[in-house]
Amino acid sequence: MSALPPLNRRDGRPTLAIVGATGAVGTVMLDILSTRTDVWGDIRLIASPRSAGKKLRVRGEELEVVALSEEAFEGVDIAMFDVPDEVSAQWAPVAAAKGAVAVDNSGAFRMDADVPLVVPEVNPDQAKNRPRGIISNPNCTTLSMIVALGALHREYTLRELVVSSYQAASGAGQPGVDALREQIAKVAGDTTLGTQAGDVRRVIGDTGPFPAPLALNVVPWAGSLKDGGWSSEELKVRNESRKILGLPGLRVNATCVRVPVVTTHSLTVHAVFESEVDQARAQAVLAEAPGVVLCDDPANYEFPTPADVVGTDPTWVGRVRRSLDDPNALDLFLCGDNLRKGAALNTAQIAELVAEEFTER
Amino acid sequence: MSALPPLNRRDGRPTLAIVGATGAVGTVMLDILSTRTDVWGDIRLIASPRSAGKKLRVRGEELEVVALSEEAFEGVDIAMFDVPDEVSAQWAPVAAAKGAVAVDNSGAFRMDADVPLVVPEVNPDQAKNRPRGIISNPNCTTLSMIVALGALHREYTLRELVVSSYQAASGAGQPGVDALREQIAKVAGDTTLGTQAGDVRRVIGDTGPFPAPLALNVVPWAGSLKDGGWSSEELKVRNESRKILGLPGLRVNATCVRVPVVTTHSLTVHAVFESEVDQARAQAVLAEAPGVVLCDDPANYEFPTPADVVGTDPTWVGRVRRSLDDPNALDLFLCGDNLRKGAALNTAQIAELVAEEFTER
Repeated sequence: MSALPPLNRRDGRPTLAIVGATGAVGTVMLDILSTRTDVWGDIRLIASPRSAGKKLRVRGEELEVVALSEEAFEGVDIAMFDVPDEVSAQWAPVAAAKGAVAVDNSGAFRMDADVPLVVPEVNPDQAKNRPRGIISNPNCTTLSMIVALGALHREYTLRELVVSSYQAASGAGQPGVDALREQIAKVAGDTTLGTQAGDVRRVIGDTGPFPAPLALNVVPWAGSLKDGGWSSEELKVRNESRKILGLPGLRVNATCVRVPVVTTHSLTVHAVFESEVDQARAQAVLAEAPGVVLCDDPANYEFPTPADVVGTDPTWVGRVRRSLDDPNALDLFLCGDNLRKGAALNTAQIAELVAEEFTER
Repeated sequence: MSALPPLNRRDGRPTLAIVGATGAVGTVMLDILSTRTDVWGDIRLIASPRSAGKKLRVRGEELEVVALSEEAFEGVDIAMFDVPDEVSAQWAPVAAAKGAVAVDNSGAFRMDADVPLVVPEVNPDQAKNRPRGIISNPNCTTLSMIVALGALHREYTLRELVVSSYQAASGAGQPGVDALREQIAKVAGDTTLGTQAGDVRRVIGDTGPFPAPLALNVVPWAGSLKDGGWSSEELKVRNESRKILGLPGLRVNATCVRVPVVTTHSLTVHAVFESEVDQARAQAVLAEAPGVVLCDDPANYEFPTPADVVGTDPTWVGRVRRSLDDPNALDLFLCGDNLRKGAALNTAQIAELVAEEFTER
């Protein structure tokens, strides 16, 4: 315990640990915690031994990063994890065994029947149903649409989703962002590129974490290959939407495509409901939904785009149209910052939900 | 007639006029005519008076551009038009009145009941059914998917399509390409852009022909606003697919989105059929279909991307998956060069179909 800074429980408020504090999402998390209403006693920053000793600012204080270890969870009430799946799989149960509630942003526990998958605007009650002491945070692509769809589901009852994604480079972490910026620098200024097969590929060379060039291109792949030609990302959208909405029979087919955008995922959604929909009513439902911004006035070119949404908290929705064939179907375009609501913000919101239990005690 | 070069009918083969020879599609057309089997007698290049006198190469010959006028169609058997809607609306009937068959790539006549909308791999017989002497070429977005969907329709009978597009800048013509290249030059090298709302918009300034920045962004808009919040581009995908396939009741909902790609449109399609589908059989149907290339081995990262497809003739299809919910549905990802099959190539193929009638005489 000698290496750990002492915990000073302020006003009896819960102690928070951030595991993976130095990563891309961890950095956004520190920013988010510094701007949201502060419900926390002490905050402890945890990362790999390589980052231990590093100093980071949160809530205006400078804190020293400590190495991930069993003792690091001593006295911690809530531990947020943003680390690779295998690190979460090993360490979230350790945190839970030490008495902390683990809020995990990896894919390790999302489909575990004993781990709730929580979006505070959609299924907040599930946060209390955590037999393993672990709560999962959904994948960023699911999170870019589920708050808006949850609101429409409460009004009309969802039956089917057809989803196509326009996913940002930062979904592949900082290496994804670096690769996109390098590729854009390589293709900039050339007035012939993108006109002959393979010319962009030749100039870009190494495609980084992506299986094809991303600058001046789109790449219909994210994740790993699963049965039937589906990608893991596409199955996450399906399985996580079903679990969060509590609809195990929801029909969901997704195609996930990476686009040359730094941060903020966009999605088109064709949503079919059990009851008849109305464009104006659907727009009103979305406009009133917490965590959702309706941006839908195409006559004045008002619709969400990643460049206008990045860095903001809500899910933005536009292009709300009733299907021309099916009175029960809507077509939508949505944007959400994949590092904020898609990762750090939703994790922080879950942690705050749990923190309320401490206040209620 | 004094300004017109004389026509030398070679071997009795039909005379072709290219109206809009100096435009983006016209330029690709001259390239395509120079590489395909040459079925033409004389070729006459026609453009606005501003371009008259300009010399362009086609089939290895240098030809002088003549100004658009009634006399320019004198002796012409087939006239291909790639000009704005209002120019086609005025001049295609003039060409037809002069005895030429007009093959028009504008939107002016596509939904005219007396004008067939032809894709030679799908509905070649319709080319003969032209009471007004005009044949229309479909919109580039429809053309990027319809050859592959036509092949699947012959096998399984289409019932419904949900389409999302990833449309290239050149769909907005050369100004679209120029704007994208300028925008990419402006954002290249900056390692902070794309992380705060509005930062890309501020650096780019004028967004050119697009209603929002296109570099480091995607824009859910193409065309003009129609009833119910639909864009004209989305309704074209719907109405043209129905007409080409001869399925007036086909359910089609499309969302059209512009992406920072120079040329080649990509599409995700969720296609529902009347009969049960099989992944391997669907792949075989696509692999055997004329004008289609199956590129579908995700284990080896083989799927079509615009950077690999641009400059080629076929429709490329990958990510062929059977729906996990509906045994009658397939999910696909398609790419097609919007200037070639999406415009010039299909127009040339229609003109060649008509040219066969001259040979048959």
